[in-house]
Amino acid sequence: MGAGDGHKLWIFPDGDLPPAGQPGLPLEGHESLIVLNTGDEDAHIEIDVFFSDSDPVEGLRVKVPARRVRVFRIDKPLGEQAFDIPFGQYSLRLRSNVNIIAQLGRADVRQPNLAYYTVMGFSAD
Amino acid sequence: MGAGDGHKLWIFPDGDLPPAGQPGLPLEGHESLIVLNTGDEDAHIEIDVFFSDSDPVEGLRVKVPARRVRVFRIDKPLGEQAFDIPFGQYSLRLRSNVNIIAQLGRADVRQPNLAYYTVMGFSAD
Amino acid sequence: MGAGDGHKLWIFPDGDLPPAGQPGLPLEGHESLIVLNTGDEDAHIEIDVFFSDSDPVEGLRVKVPARRVRVFRIDKPLGEQAFDIPFGQYSLRLRSNVNIIAQLGRADVRQPNLAYYTVMGFSAD
Amino acid sequence: MGAGDGHKLWIFPDGDLPPAGQPGLPLEGHESLIVLNTGDEDAHIEIDVFFSDSDPVEGLRVKVPARRVRVFRIDKPLGEQAFDIPFGQYSLRLRSNVNIIAQLGRADVRQPNLAYYTVMGFSAD
Repeated sequence: MGAGDGHKLWIFPDGDLPPAGQPGLPLEGHESLIVLNTGDEDAHIEIDVFFSDSDPVEGLRVKVPARRVRVFRIDKPLGEQAFDIPFGQYSLRLRSNVNIIAQLGRADVRQPNLAYYTVMGFSAD
Repeated sequence: MGAGDGHKLWIFPDGDLPPAGQPGLPLEGHESLIVLNTGDEDAHIEIDVFFSDSDPVEGLRVKVPARRVRVFRIDKPLGEQAFDIPFGQYSLRLRSNVNIIAQLGRADVRQPNLAYYTVMGFSAD
Repeated sequence: MGAGDGHKLWIFPDGDLPPAGQPGLPLEGHESLIVLNTGDEDAHIEIDVFFSDSDPVEGLRVKVPARRVRVFRIDKPLGEQAFDIPFGQYSLRLRSNVNIIAQLGRADVRQPNLAYYTVMGFSAD
Repeated sequence: MGAGDGHKLWIFPDGDLPPAGQPGLPLEGHESLIVLNTGDEDAHIEIDVFFSDSDPVEGLRVKVPARRVRVFRIDKPLGEQAFDIPFGQYSLRLRSNVNIIAQLGRADVRQPNLAYYTVMGFSAD
């Protein structure tokens, strides 16, 4: 196989962390970034985080091993730099050394019932 | 960097403002247009609004500064012209002078629990 | 302007009509096909409906006037032929004489609260 | 017609089977893969399943007859090999001998009310 499927650039305009919700719910409110690497080479990815009123934070490093899918919780410290994304509007840009496929999901539990939100990223090379 | 990521034309066929809902809910019913500008130049965008049975309203002007994401509430006056989009079916077309990435979301609270809806726009140059 | 935005072929693999739900709910369970025509020429569209175990029904005719968006309820008779799509899995293919943009949505109310589902179509020329 | 619409490669990064939920709910928690074949030739598809921490399972065989849509429940044994996808994060890659269009949906009922999630796949040839 060698080269994996997908693109090297992925962008998600609409990130906005929901509250975690009450303890004891079947699912905690959160957002997750899912990255699939179907190739034979590890994916080294830099994540840039954009905001409404301040400069972007660039170059958060994450890795997805060859032939693996990895989930990155956005409500946890992100990347080798362990950056905490603050509450409020943000966007993500992923730049990878190899082809990947990325998707962003939100689970919102600020109510008795779960609401889902998911979107395949905008992709390019 | 210079030129940003994405496309200059973005289209969202399915807009339909939900009711705001009861006061005191954790989230107000609304739709939002999210626009990310990853480039070094401000994005000057014209928004055209299409309807089912009347001519489109064209050229609502909004701006997204360089390296910023901005959220435009559809249930608030839109653009420099402060146009109020009426209830009922509508579509949006964005035309930008520089590359952008756009996404449209709805939060519906006409029930005790939130329902989410999101869609990445159709894009072209 | 002349030619409108989008593509002439749009496909939605996953259609499955939800029940209408109890009378008196704020929203009736249904699916809707939304079609935007940004061009100056009326769009004449043929809709083909695919099923799991029988031949497709082809050539249902609908029209979207120039510079208009139209919503086609899937739980109502569809096209000039007034075809009733039965309950169960179905797919839609739209073929248009001019460029259009199409999106499919579901509102499910078989529970006290609404659940949303939406998807931009797969498009090509 | 002959050749059908779509692409031969489809990828879904974010699979994660929800619990089936209590008996007697109007809808069972599950994920479904929907595949449409608009062409005149049967589609022979190989599905590869990727995981977070183990090697992918490759080559699960499914078939979608000419001019048909088929739904594959992910919470049931998948393909001729009747492979049971375990709970936890997984990704799907479909490789087909002919063009197809694929979509993945989740219905989550781990709460009194249903939550929907759907995504059109990333596609390429």
